Amino acid sequence: MSPNNVQGGCSALFTDFYSLTMAQGYWKNKMDKRAVFEMFFRRHPFGGGFSVFAGLETLVEKIGGFSFSRGDLEYLASLGVFEDAFLDYLAGFRFSGDLWSLDEGTIVFPQEPLIRVDANLIESQIIEGLILNTINFQSLVATKTARVWLASGQGSIMEFGLRRAQGEDGAMSASRASFIGGASGTSNVLAGKKFRIPVLGTMAHSWVMSFPSEEEAFRAYADLYPGKTIFLIDTYDSLRSGVQNAIRAGKTLAEKGENFGVRLDSGDIHYLSLEVRKALDAAGFPNATITVSNDLDEAIIETLTRGGAPIDTWGVGTQMVTGGNEAAFSGVYKLAASEEQGRLRPRIKFSDNPEKTTNPGVKQLWRIRDGDGMAVADILALDDPANPDILEKNRRYVFWHPQADYRHFYHTIEGSAEPLLRIRISGGTALSSPPPLAEIQRGVREGLDRFDQSYKRILNPHIYKVSVTERLRTLKLDLIKNYLGEL
Amino acid sequence: MSPNNVQGGCSALFTDFYSLTMAQGYWKNKMDKRAVFEMFFRRHPFGGGFSVFAGLETLVEKIGGFSFSRGDLEYLASLGVFEDAFLDYLAGFRFSGDLWSLDEGTIVFPQEPLIRVDANLIESQIIEGLILNTINFQSLVATKTARVWLASGQGSIMEFGLRRAQGEDGAMSASRASFIGGASGTSNVLAGKKFRIPVLGTMAHSWVMSFPSEEEAFRAYADLYPGKTIFLIDTYDSLRSGVQNAIRAGKTLAEKGENFGVRLDSGDIHYLSLEVRKALDAAGFPNATITVSNDLDEAIIETLTRGGAPIDTWGVGTQMVTGGNEAAFSGVYKLAASEEQGRLRPRIKFSDNPEKTTNPGVKQLWRIRDGDGMAVADILALDDPANPDILEKNRRYVFWHPQADYRHFYHTIEGSAEPLLRIRISGGTALSSPPPLAEIQRGVREGLDRFDQSYKRILNPHIYKVSVTERLRTLKLDLIKNYLGEL
Repeated sequence: MSPNNVQGGCSALFTDFYSLTMAQGYWKNKMDKRAVFEMFFRRHPFGGGFSVFAGLETLVEKIGGFSFSRGDLEYLASLGVFEDAFLDYLAGFRFSGDLWSLDEGTIVFPQEPLIRVDANLIESQIIEGLILNTINFQSLVATKTARVWLASGQGSIMEFGLRRAQGEDGAMSASRASFIGGASGTSNVLAGKKFRIPVLGTMAHSWVMSFPSEEEAFRAYADLYPGKTIFLIDTYDSLRSGVQNAIRAGKTLAEKGENFGVRLDSGDIHYLSLEVRKALDAAGFPNATITVSNDLDEAIIETLTRGGAPIDTWGVGTQMVTGGNEAAFSGVYKLAASEEQGRLRPRIKFSDNPEKTTNPGVKQLWRIRDGDGMAVADILALDDPANPDILEKNRRYVFWHPQADYRHFYHTIEGSAEPLLRIRISGGTALSSPPPLAEIQRGVREGLDRFDQSYKRILNPHIYKVSVTERLRTLKLDLIKNYLGEL
Repeated sequence: MSPNNVQGGCSALFTDFYSLTMAQGYWKNKMDKRAVFEMFFRRHPFGGGFSVFAGLETLVEKIGGFSFSRGDLEYLASLGVFEDAFLDYLAGFRFSGDLWSLDEGTIVFPQEPLIRVDANLIESQIIEGLILNTINFQSLVATKTARVWLASGQGSIMEFGLRRAQGEDGAMSASRASFIGGASGTSNVLAGKKFRIPVLGTMAHSWVMSFPSEEEAFRAYADLYPGKTIFLIDTYDSLRSGVQNAIRAGKTLAEKGENFGVRLDSGDIHYLSLEVRKALDAAGFPNATITVSNDLDEAIIETLTRGGAPIDTWGVGTQMVTGGNEAAFSGVYKLAASEEQGRLRPRIKFSDNPEKTTNPGVKQLWRIRDGDGMAVADILALDDPANPDILEKNRRYVFWHPQADYRHFYHTIEGSAEPLLRIRISGGTALSSPPPLAEIQRGVREGLDRFDQSYKRILNPHIYKVSVTERLRTLKLDLIKNYLGEL
């Protein structure tokens, strides 16, 4: 079920068929020229006001090993579409270009280049599917988790998604991305091993049902894992049976100086958590914790938090690892520039949907901050090495809406202006080793801290400004004008 | 990114942490007794009237190799929770029990056992996550694709999901499950190789943008792939530019006796397809095909089909491979019976949500048909080998609603009654090799043919009857009564 059929690598057959038929076309037509592609997305998932860029280190690792095995080439030959000489070319295929990107964990917005690939046209095209597949999914889950984490009041989130995740890697990558987005740990033991994420868990209904009584089931677990026991109390009846048996088993634990917790997995979580809290407090266990689960998402969690439900830990699965009612991040990969007569020229795609018109040219993304370090706006700027747009402190600029040309604003940069795209792969070689996941998670939290609350609202957030420089606006308008004149 | 870290197998760390902590508990308490678990689901996804059971052969293959490597055991030891003697036990872990299931591709309904595991408690628990992860995802995608295929009037569906799928396996397993559910092929080349699914594709906007003009881009592609060319016509303007250039390039193809097609990927698909059809017909190309894409799902496709849009082929990606607005299949895995004093005893889970109360005991699923072979109802029956419920033709039975006990119906079986659960893994060994995917796909189509149209309606379908036998109903009521008496 895994593309890993090349020693230490990833099969480059993990691509769309048209990438290979087009690649053969470029190769035959000697169009193996330099091209710059950018990955960006068109709107935030979940009706949100921000997204979290994730999946970069996974992608860099995979690109390093992306190649065609002998078996892959035999399969391609069997399709009767590819020439032997082209297959020979593929036999030596490795990504040899440059890849620029934002830091993994950066808070991002629509239209912004998350990744920029500067390579020959064939290589750029063959890695398209891998880039989109990896970044779209992990960014979706990291974004969802950050929302869940914010809704819980920056609380303790356990990722429990393995059983409802979309396949093996749907679980594995989701555990990674959830941790980046703010989860404390995962129930997925293999993800724990692979990514060094804390592994967490409670007990299943089947444990309780495998003993003659609920109390015996609880006592047996408490004997085994004193100090780590969370009793699942809803197998029969949370209030009349579950919490009472948890208290009985908890008394034995208390004699050993150990605390315990309970988990609610059905019924009305708000009502039950209040009643369970009362029962635990009355029995002398004010420190016993309450964990809840049962198809939670950020909207439900926010309601519970704001309603004062006494919940310590949230077990979140399905909705977080799949996106729930929105299962895909809208990232696309579009040509921004390509070589013509030895020079890189900006390219634009019009499309029949105006909002699908691309921003042409090789671009840098700048984040502008105020004197307190809070983000004010992001700016797309041209990044032609010979003559890049540079933004500087204390200077005044006019910035333009990327689509609605009649909107613009004047702004003097008071705090800082920072270019966010950095080179990660140079000439096919990764430039640095990946940071620990905990560091990326910390980056997300610090990043979120520097955006106003209004952008982080779960429902109906404020729209953060993403604008283009005067030069980029002029280029875009010129290209549109030229093209429409030709029609 | 893949659990495949054991030669030819799959790491058994791909499980929830609590499965291992409970397993250690069972092992220490010498509760390594026989248990029967069933996987079932609670409601159809997408507001539909049927679901398609998929993922079985993937699961059987993975269970065969599910084991702990030395590295896995070292990782577990590092957690400080597991005893050495238990880790020694895990070192020899292999699934050694029986697994029963429906045929892959069976049309299924809520409450029905899809899979039945009869094994010792530890093994049953450790494979829970693998079963749910595999079956939930593939069943979701196969069901979605069957809906898309029905909505298109059993048309030609190309699965284009790789770039928006949920990770590597989100793409790979989705290509497999989409094909089972009715897709004609996939754009994912690796899935084509692995599952022997036809690979399909058109061209990207970047191809068109890489040439000095759209016409040159089309001609170059047509030269390379005559007879297989589908021109993507919306890079600049579908009607004013795209279709005109397609016609020009198509004339050259026609001189060689080759047909061609066009693809629409933006704008109003209904309007554009009608206009493009007119233009192609007027130019003398009544056989040129029209392919459409752009975030299609079964609702949009049904509107287009019913509205008479002249579309030949549908490229469907995101919504089909992720489920779109519903990203998870609601399958669960629950204890149905466990050994006590040498006898298998039925088990029930109550829960604080009445609809979460399980059907106790080891069960068989029967499908009852009328004299024309059309499905009438599905019946859950007890399957105690010593005294199973058997349903026979020409006999009259009373069947009960599985939850609403005041509802029941009398029925004389006129056509056939067939038990659908069959043994697939016996004593840890798979009993047969997997059928070709095309055969499973055919099974889905034949299966659907034998259900009334009303169950297959996309919006607001009729509810197919799933009932329980008199004996199962009595058992359930007795267990509930006994338990409530104890509270």
